[in-house]
Amino acid sequence: VSPRVFLASDYGLDDEFVGVVHAVLVRLAPDAVVVDLSHGIAPFDVAGGAALLARAAPHLGPGVLLAIVDPGVGTTRRGVAIEVVGEPRYLVGPDNGLLLDAATVLGGVRRVVELAAPKAAPHLARTFDGRDLFAPCAARLAAGGDLADLGHDVDASTLVALAVAPSHARELDDGRVAVTTTVRWIDRFGNVQLALPGHVLGRATTVGLVARDEDALARVVGAFGDLERGTIGLLRDANDAVAIVVREGNAASRFRVAVGDRVELVGDLGPLD
Amino acid sequence: VSPRVFLASDYGLDDEFVGVVHAVLVRLAPDAVVVDLSHGIAPFDVAGGAALLARAAPHLGPGVLLAIVDPGVGTTRRGVAIEVVGEPRYLVGPDNGLLLDAATVLGGVRRVVELAAPKAAPHLARTFDGRDLFAPCAARLAAGGDLADLGHDVDASTLVALAVAPSHARELDDGRVAVTTTVRWIDRFGNVQLALPGHVLGRATTVGLVARDEDALARVVGAFGDLERGTIGLLRDANDAVAIVVREGNAASRFRVAVGDRVELVGDLGPLD
Amino acid sequence: VSPRVFLASDYGLDDEFVGVVHAVLVRLAPDAVVVDLSHGIAPFDVAGGAALLARAAPHLGPGVLLAIVDPGVGTTRRGVAIEVVGEPRYLVGPDNGLLLDAATVLGGVRRVVELAAPKAAPHLARTFDGRDLFAPCAARLAAGGDLADLGHDVDASTLVALAVAPSHARELDDGRVAVTTTVRWIDRFGNVQLALPGHVLGRATTVGLVARDEDALARVVGAFGDLERGTIGLLRDANDAVAIVVREGNAASRFRVAVGDRVELVGDLGPLD
Repeated sequence: VSPRVFLASDYGLDDEFVGVVHAVLVRLAPDAVVVDLSHGIAPFDVAGGAALLARAAPHLGPGVLLAIVDPGVGTTRRGVAIEVVGEPRYLVGPDNGLLLDAATVLGGVRRVVELAAPKAAPHLARTFDGRDLFAPCAARLAAGGDLADLGHDVDASTLVALAVAPSHARELDDGRVAVTTTVRWIDRFGNVQLALPGHVLGRATTVGLVARDEDALARVVGAFGDLERGTIGLLRDANDAVAIVVREGNAASRFRVAVGDRVELVGDLGPLD
Repeated sequence: VSPRVFLASDYGLDDEFVGVVHAVLVRLAPDAVVVDLSHGIAPFDVAGGAALLARAAPHLGPGVLLAIVDPGVGTTRRGVAIEVVGEPRYLVGPDNGLLLDAATVLGGVRRVVELAAPKAAPHLARTFDGRDLFAPCAARLAAGGDLADLGHDVDASTLVALAVAPSHARELDDGRVAVTTTVRWIDRFGNVQLALPGHVLGRATTVGLVARDEDALARVVGAFGDLERGTIGLLRDANDAVAIVVREGNAASRFRVAVGDRVELVGDLGPLD
Repeated sequence: VSPRVFLASDYGLDDEFVGVVHAVLVRLAPDAVVVDLSHGIAPFDVAGGAALLARAAPHLGPGVLLAIVDPGVGTTRRGVAIEVVGEPRYLVGPDNGLLLDAATVLGGVRRVVELAAPKAAPHLARTFDGRDLFAPCAARLAAGGDLADLGHDVDASTLVALAVAPSHARELDDGRVAVTTTVRWIDRFGNVQLALPGHVLGRATTVGLVARDEDALARVVGAFGDLERGTIGLLRDANDAVAIVVREGNAASRFRVAVGDRVELVGDLGPLD
């Protein structure tokens, strides 16, 4: 079976960045198949990229995950290759928090190597490490190369982690539970994924929602089909997170919420973990 | 030769949906080559997706066509795999009219199987059948699997068909023919494809056009090169449909038309079929 | 190693054009791997496409470069296949200036063939030469076919060249040099690439910039990391051109410049060539 490289970035598809990274990968790992996860991560949005990688990671299988959202390119931030417990076995990219959630989802970090700087073109500014550093390293791993040949080992505890807005739960006088959390992702269809694992929905059948000073009562459903068209629901989505949805409608525009906004849920909710 | 899977959806390219579907396909059909037709179909636009598939289908060759525009995901709508007379031999997706025009273009339906529901993660809502149902089924067909193993046979006459706005022709007193039809597609360049087969242009050399209360006289041409720059023409386009074009210009913005708008043509036109 | 076809166009990704070209390529060259460089070139923007190809070309390696930005499709403009000194060895596309800068970057033109018109579907207007002419020719080259089988030889000096806005340098009384040049590319991150080779920055440490009546003093830096966040710099970018950058910011919106705008640099600058 040909080795896989899974590729994600904030490069967009208008410039040639993604194509050039593909070209470098297939030059250095001729048997590799490159699978694009997304290049539509907002420019410099490390947190959005990290969430995307964590959602995708469990579904990829063997290979190398190469991810580039890199506002610090050309500074002293490190490039790293991370070996994890699960598969894909290797994660390659900048050490800015982009890779760490995916590494956790994949069973945790086994080993980290800081990538040695590329020697090519030292008279040029380093503005395209995707081409010059990360793709060559990912290709070497995809072609069966050894992690140790890419640089020197570093302590996993020194990896940069992103700050996370925590979720809180408190019990109300009437026995219901109020949970405050964050909008983590809004997909193309306007489904609003919250930073809550699916089991928080517990035994609730109806949940009060407050987002941006708007209230709504949402039914907890097992499928879109349980909702009337255009009505609001809560469900355990395809990543087993809690999501606010509207059947054949756009929940995000209904509540006018954006990623990072706080949302409150009130109902017969389960524990946060 | 490695098997092909042709993939189209309304997933867009900003989220990881397309990448995860690719990953599932190459895990389950390691030799398959996945060719993206488009993921820019407007969200939930089943008719636009059906037209896109019908245009593309004759040019694809052997393989499996996997298409997902699925406003009814998580309801009782069926998933189907359709075997057709031509190639690609199999079409996989939701039974909501998305696949039927392509099946007709490919010589017609031979056999239909309703896909058995996926067993994975029954505690989650079904919001991502592309990943959990359609891609696994398409991969099994691409890997040489048997249609019968995917579910039970259903009657082809029960497949959901889209409503079509019919075209009408009437003869005028002066012997010319007036045809009323619909804008079926506006491409990136603003070319306006009508729901008329190319032969309708018949022997006409000049055709009167009425769209959104604007009139124009269009020359019937055999090539863009027959038009002055910026002038309006009618031609038999690359799908052998009638198209309104402007040489090095945008016909759709010239007439301010959108998909679904009605257009009238008057001239020495041929029969509709 | 499987042959590569590198593909760029102004087709966008909303329609099925790119997917159909892929399908034709893999039908006619079953072993080929197709690498998309970009399909986000602005419609009909031949100059923008030429610049993109010239930037990407040195990084691609062996294969065929297929590029389509073709406002003249269906006119008398020629289709060509160009053999160059370097690799990718073949460039295929319209003869409108799109390919020539890349050919120069790849060591220069060896041989040019004018592609024979496709015979398929002569009753249809030629509106999709990507599918009907260029992809079949590129596939034949990728599959090991001979250039001579695609058409007849033409003189390389007859290839259409794009007009270039020249850069000018003049020495000031104080010994500094004033260079007037053009914005050649603005990437997704707002970095502003100028039509100047990197060595023009010479020994300068600070350079005065005038763009759209705005002045700024820019530090010449070897890396983004040498800049304070949000400050303006000049550097030799990943294509070894001079670029105006803002660390973790958008230089193009800072100066409100667009491609084609004139920019003046004043400082201890080196010669233009």
